[in-house]
Amino acid sequence: MMRNPLLVPDLRELIQAGEMTALREFMAEYHPARIAEVVEDLGSGEGDAIFDLLEPRTRAEVMSYLEGETQVRLVEAMPSASAADLMHLMSHDERADLVNRLDDERVDEILRRLAHAEREDIRRLASYEPGTAGSVMTTDYATLRPDATVREALDHLRQEAPDRETIYYSYVVDKDRRLLGLISLKNLLLARPRARIDEIMTRDLVLARVDEDQESVAAKIEQYDLIAIPVVDAADMLVGIVTHDDAMDILRRAQTTDMLQFGGVSADREADDAPYWQGSPMGAVRRRIKWLLMLFLAENFTYPVFQWFKWMEGDHYYPALGFFTALILGPGGNAGSQSVGTIIRGLALDEIHARDLFRVLLREVTTGLLLGLSLGSVALFYTAFWRWMPWDIASVVGLTILGICVWANLIGSLVPLLARRAGIDPAGISAPFISTLVDATGLVVFYSLAYLILIRLHL
Amino acid sequence: MMRNPLLVPDLRELIQAGEMTALREFMAEYHPARIAEVVEDLGSGEGDAIFDLLEPRTRAEVMSYLEGETQVRLVEAMPSASAADLMHLMSHDERADLVNRLDDERVDEILRRLAHAEREDIRRLASYEPGTAGSVMTTDYATLRPDATVREALDHLRQEAPDRETIYYSYVVDKDRRLLGLISLKNLLLARPRARIDEIMTRDLVLARVDEDQESVAAKIEQYDLIAIPVVDAADMLVGIVTHDDAMDILRRAQTTDMLQFGGVSADREADDAPYWQGSPMGAVRRRIKWLLMLFLAENFTYPVFQWFKWMEGDHYYPALGFFTALILGPGGNAGSQSVGTIIRGLALDEIHARDLFRVLLREVTTGLLLGLSLGSVALFYTAFWRWMPWDIASVVGLTILGICVWANLIGSLVPLLARRAGIDPAGISAPFISTLVDATGLVVFYSLAYLILIRLHL
Repeated sequence: MMRNPLLVPDLRELIQAGEMTALREFMAEYHPARIAEVVEDLGSGEGDAIFDLLEPRTRAEVMSYLEGETQVRLVEAMPSASAADLMHLMSHDERADLVNRLDDERVDEILRRLAHAEREDIRRLASYEPGTAGSVMTTDYATLRPDATVREALDHLRQEAPDRETIYYSYVVDKDRRLLGLISLKNLLLARPRARIDEIMTRDLVLARVDEDQESVAAKIEQYDLIAIPVVDAADMLVGIVTHDDAMDILRRAQTTDMLQFGGVSADREADDAPYWQGSPMGAVRRRIKWLLMLFLAENFTYPVFQWFKWMEGDHYYPALGFFTALILGPGGNAGSQSVGTIIRGLALDEIHARDLFRVLLREVTTGLLLGLSLGSVALFYTAFWRWMPWDIASVVGLTILGICVWANLIGSLVPLLARRAGIDPAGISAPFISTLVDATGLVVFYSLAYLILIRLHL
Repeated sequence: MMRNPLLVPDLRELIQAGEMTALREFMAEYHPARIAEVVEDLGSGEGDAIFDLLEPRTRAEVMSYLEGETQVRLVEAMPSASAADLMHLMSHDERADLVNRLDDERVDEILRRLAHAEREDIRRLASYEPGTAGSVMTTDYATLRPDATVREALDHLRQEAPDRETIYYSYVVDKDRRLLGLISLKNLLLARPRARIDEIMTRDLVLARVDEDQESVAAKIEQYDLIAIPVVDAADMLVGIVTHDDAMDILRRAQTTDMLQFGGVSADREADDAPYWQGSPMGAVRRRIKWLLMLFLAENFTYPVFQWFKWMEGDHYYPALGFFTALILGPGGNAGSQSVGTIIRGLALDEIHARDLFRVLLREVTTGLLLGLSLGSVALFYTAFWRWMPWDIASVVGLTILGICVWANLIGSLVPLLARRAGIDPAGISAPFISTLVDATGLVVFYSLAYLILIRLHL
């Protein structure tokens, strides 16, 4: 998909005409994210040519908006010295991620050209366990001393700004880099120029531990509306910050992982979180087979139900019931999916709380009753007038659908609410799990009603 | 759930002992978000008491972290004059939302006490259509004139800062408030004090229209890593900004709405986006019934399949096949859910593109084949050795599960990819839709195999 259909053909023309000055002027006006889109859209030949034209600092900014594959392609095509210059200017978290994507040999060649401290910073950031605060944090933040004055602090920030990811929060640290407090640039601008930093800094910090799960860190940024959160190690020393834009990426990933869990792909959050193309189909099979097998075996517990009603085999209604079995399981599973989806969402948005258990159940069961009445009536008349079944079979079908809708809504709301009460993340409950539960129990309802209506009342 | 189990009992004690000074000192140290949690946890009596103790400006900040219900309760309990003071200090988008939650009469009483311009601002912000940029934007941003110098701009921001939601971006407007450019506080600090704003401002702006969908606005903030995005009206006049923290809330809502769509709750995104408790169960029924009915009717198209194989009724295998019908539909629907969930996620994260159609199909079909081989073998041996069915029935069950897994993965990946190609949002495709499709077609596979193996080859 081309995101800049008007821009790209113009640029192509300029590249083919070799109008490099015009191109440079063109690019100087654009947001780095837009330049990155253009580089992606133009592809390897022309995209690389555009990238080469950029100012070194712009180039470093554009890198952070490019896809991983493109970053690797561009860096592979560069001399090591240029790659080292680029890395020097890139944001610290982005270059650590890039290092993890490149060949070890190539990395050694590039890092050799950087200063010792910078090399160490890259190696350290690249070494944190994926999924932790350490793996997503950056080290290009601004620090202040507690005994500096506001005027000194502002001068210091002015010097540091070009190399810092954000200067809107400054972190106050002692000489051992222990985190003492934080001050926003807004408050620095408002303070008396002679005030000391430790008089005006905020001491009640929301912070993250370096080994903390990245989703928990992103949730804090969201909850407290932060631009960035400081990350400390076990000795309370400041080791990095995670910024709001990274938090947004983490939350997007996490919520799409919720979708996989909801779709019943696996019960292993870490495995589900992997990118689509990572690993072989065999890996996907290993993850997915667990749920499928479990659900298959669960479904088998309905066998006794069939056996119990085996005497119906001889009955002349039996073949018709065989068809309606498939017909009836559909709405139950679907109603269960709807209900569990609604409740998980309500819990995620804090619209529903575990204490609302009975209010929620009442509402969902009422909804199930109304759904069952509507759908059951449709099924009743459909069976009687379209498929020309006798009324007794039609009523078994209609009543089963009524019962199964109520039951599906009860199960679909009860299970996530009980999970939340028990401290289990309700996002781990899958729609297939609920459908299977409803299917299995729905069969009992169906055959019991069939027994009652067809055998007890009529025969 | 109490989020501050250590803090709350201490505070209760201080309130009961009437230690107001100690309480005030206590609260002064905490982040407004944490105070809001404490107010919620303490509930109506003690929570209100704590809220009353706060400094006016802190009170306004705490408001933005409170739930809607609590905000209304606190404001209802206040004299109109205090409510007006509070609104004066609240962030502009928050107070417009509050006005939409209060009684009209109460709103009139409060607004009467505010200055004309402020009243107009609140009325205007409260009047935008829900779901648009206008409904989530705020008007407390900082503007600069293009002919101001950097020194003048910084002085101006210093004065404005206390009343602005953010001063990290300043918007440059002409005398008709038409948006000319933007400058970050970082660049202001770095610029020569005598430089003119229009020499150093950014002109390539990423902006939002006032009637633009809020999800599209949030997506721009995410894509370009912005702290805020300017919102303009049809005449290109700046009318507000949407900030990164609001974008996060919008994305969270949008992604949980995706979950409802995936769960097959309705096909109406706007209806699905409503809060859980909004509307009656009847409304929920109206939304949910559409899908259930459609899927029910779709499932009915399998009737001809049954009729086609009606001759099997007389066959002695038939009753056993009735049971296995239910058993076989489960894995097909579940594998379909897994596959469609995986693909929708890959598309949402930009890991899969529409152009990858064949690569994705190949991968999913391979996965389906491997899943089918594993699950089919389990089913074969289960049917033969646990349920003691003859080998021919066992092979029908095993082969059907193999076929249905491949088919489910094909459908589950093909449908979202084709939807994306056709320009339809794949997040609207529901797991129940895919399951029903797989169920219906799965029956054909099952009965065809049964016919082939049981009747053609053996009888």
